[in-house]
Amino acid sequence: MGKRIEKLMKLEEAVDVLAKNISIELRSESVSILDSLHRIVARDIVAEHDFPFFNRSAVDGFAVRAEDTYGASESNPIGLKVVGDTRSRTLNIVKPGEAVKIYTGDPLPSGTDAVVMLEDVLDYGDTIYVLKSLSKYANVALHGEDIQQGKKLIEQGEVVEPKHIVALATLGLNSVEVYEKLRICILCTGSEVVEPGTISIKTVLEKGLIFNSTSYLLLSFLRSWSFVEPIYMGIVRDIVNEVELMINRALDLCHLIITTGGAGPSDYDVTLEVVEGMGGKLIFRGVAMRPGRPTSAGIVNGKPIFMLSGYPVAALIGLRYIIFPALEKALKIRIPRKIVAAKLTKHIANVAGYTTFVRVKLNRCRDNLCAEPIASMGSGTISTLLDSDGILVVPEDVEGFEEGQLAEVELL
Amino acid sequence: MGKRIEKLMKLEEAVDVLAKNISIELRSESVSILDSLHRIVARDIVAEHDFPFFNRSAVDGFAVRAEDTYGASESNPIGLKVVGDTRSRTLNIVKPGEAVKIYTGDPLPSGTDAVVMLEDVLDYGDTIYVLKSLSKYANVALHGEDIQQGKKLIEQGEVVEPKHIVALATLGLNSVEVYEKLRICILCTGSEVVEPGTISIKTVLEKGLIFNSTSYLLLSFLRSWSFVEPIYMGIVRDIVNEVELMINRALDLCHLIITTGGAGPSDYDVTLEVVEGMGGKLIFRGVAMRPGRPTSAGIVNGKPIFMLSGYPVAALIGLRYIIFPALEKALKIRIPRKIVAAKLTKHIANVAGYTTFVRVKLNRCRDNLCAEPIASMGSGTISTLLDSDGILVVPEDVEGFEEGQLAEVELL
Repeated sequence: MGKRIEKLMKLEEAVDVLAKNISIELRSESVSILDSLHRIVARDIVAEHDFPFFNRSAVDGFAVRAEDTYGASESNPIGLKVVGDTRSRTLNIVKPGEAVKIYTGDPLPSGTDAVVMLEDVLDYGDTIYVLKSLSKYANVALHGEDIQQGKKLIEQGEVVEPKHIVALATLGLNSVEVYEKLRICILCTGSEVVEPGTISIKTVLEKGLIFNSTSYLLLSFLRSWSFVEPIYMGIVRDIVNEVELMINRALDLCHLIITTGGAGPSDYDVTLEVVEGMGGKLIFRGVAMRPGRPTSAGIVNGKPIFMLSGYPVAALIGLRYIIFPALEKALKIRIPRKIVAAKLTKHIANVAGYTTFVRVKLNRCRDNLCAEPIASMGSGTISTLLDSDGILVVPEDVEGFEEGQLAEVELL
Repeated sequence: MGKRIEKLMKLEEAVDVLAKNISIELRSESVSILDSLHRIVARDIVAEHDFPFFNRSAVDGFAVRAEDTYGASESNPIGLKVVGDTRSRTLNIVKPGEAVKIYTGDPLPSGTDAVVMLEDVLDYGDTIYVLKSLSKYANVALHGEDIQQGKKLIEQGEVVEPKHIVALATLGLNSVEVYEKLRICILCTGSEVVEPGTISIKTVLEKGLIFNSTSYLLLSFLRSWSFVEPIYMGIVRDIVNEVELMINRALDLCHLIITTGGAGPSDYDVTLEVVEGMGGKLIFRGVAMRPGRPTSAGIVNGKPIFMLSGYPVAALIGLRYIIFPALEKALKIRIPRKIVAAKLTKHIANVAGYTTFVRVKLNRCRDNLCAEPIASMGSGTISTLLDSDGILVVPEDVEGFEEGQLAEVELL
């Protein structure tokens, strides 16, 4: 009898059951704030001080007493005596009728409570004429107005972005505790697969071979995230001993293993046989998703092994929509997604019970963003991937989307 | 008299005039496809072959002659003789009434023109019973149906993304010509600025200092783009000789230089003095944008030098909306942007003649994406940056945006 995928697991259930079965302990380590970019923060970081640290000038100009300027205007300039410069650092308390030259960011000198901008004075060196009435704290950044002590700057499990790095630096922090990199081993299985550049197209044609492209898609996708250290294990033939050898090596090296094989039910036989032969536990075989139906997962020696399709797009979708969400749940981390809302230019139909991933091209249309579905099936089509900007997910309980409807698209 | 920014250049004009003045010659180099991620391609790459390279099976199953299956159904199974396996490589031409076991991706054996899936046969080893009528080329990926010879895979000036890497690998390419990395030197100017982690908060408070955060924002932003090699030159005091020394070093090291200083008109005096003292040409001083008004640019020894605000957000906007667009025009490269359309939750007013950059927070609202403006002024506010997801640009010829209007937001 033909081997069949007997019952497919629903996507959400696959993610949940995986998350429950994954037990990865990541150590934490201290890295410089610059090296923390796109790493995952190991503990909450809270502001220990108010920022600005003191009342400071928001502009270049003259620090004054606001009340000295009341009534000043172009037609009624008010003269003040310049008694110093904030950079000289030998200032007395500023008295009524006095002003101090001040630069952006400098603390307000004692006795002053506002700053008049250079544009709003006539500057005669020892004396300035103020042309504008100032309110108290005009052009002053107040102590603590930006960041309050106790404000959470970044949460445990968040991926560090440039905006976090600038906040840490602002408060004087130059290092941050992050989780060690998650080591993901990628193993390509298939006796017919060869590395690009190693064999002529002529030989590939004659022998009916195929270049490995799926591994490079997964590796380059993972390289965008510096919290991951992808480790490429190369191509292994569909031979039990060889696959077992490489899986054993990968178990030593990595926190988790991804294998890629063909798209049909028979293709994983060798890998599954190895996993079972090593005493591994199979978590699911096949997921109700298109593309990516043959996606399988198991645990070997306590480490997760994901068996993804050999088709590039299906494998990428397995990585992004099964492995990443399962890791997020298991490790309590949050991997940022760039989601946009876009108006569908065509109807999209779903197959009952399946989660469908549709590649879409985004275009401007009138004042909105439009999404043109360019493929829902055909997991091997490189052209549609090249032409697409994002992925639209049709959940398994949704029959489809109407033309003109707004739907969420994840940018890739 | 107070120094004033006499006339501000419009943003678009600033970008155009910069682009005309920038003459950077980037060498090209060959890198492995994996290392090409986020680099800029130095020449068009065109498919030299059709892909798939041959008619191949899209599934695991049995290669058959479609006409042999006409009329087959669950109630009328048609028997075929299994004469081999595509992996055995010693196949004769398949004759009527015969079938060959085939695996996903394997070439169709001579004589066959369709593949029946495992699910659609009863498999008794030497004989299979086909349960479904197949059309010609059912479950077959046809030669050239995905990529046609001559298709442009990636264009000169494009940034390499994972989808390009998988296309190159698919066609057997393992290296790609990219431009050398654009070396950008970042120099922080300011006698009052100290490195985070090097001085206690107590000392910073007592002396009225400030931690350098702007450099780290620019550096971490640039680190997301591997076509750039950001080189950090550290902090230099506002002293002519010291600034000149560092600018000379940066001219040796980099294709272009960014300095960051305060936000007011007096702050660039030292850098401008140095630039002019070195025989440099000033291109503009001040741009009609908020934040980032004091942004200035010049050319020294043929290399561009950008003088950005010392405020982190203003400096980042100068980098993203002046320097990057000018580089794109001058070098004929395209830096990808992630643009979304979002509904404004509040009215945004503009100041006549200014391009305004508003930080916004994105939320889901009903079936759309909503953008909540969280700051248009106050370039130094770290909290608003932490809370924001993107930047909304209000062009100088637009008076403002209405509440409820759809507007474009760039994700940061």
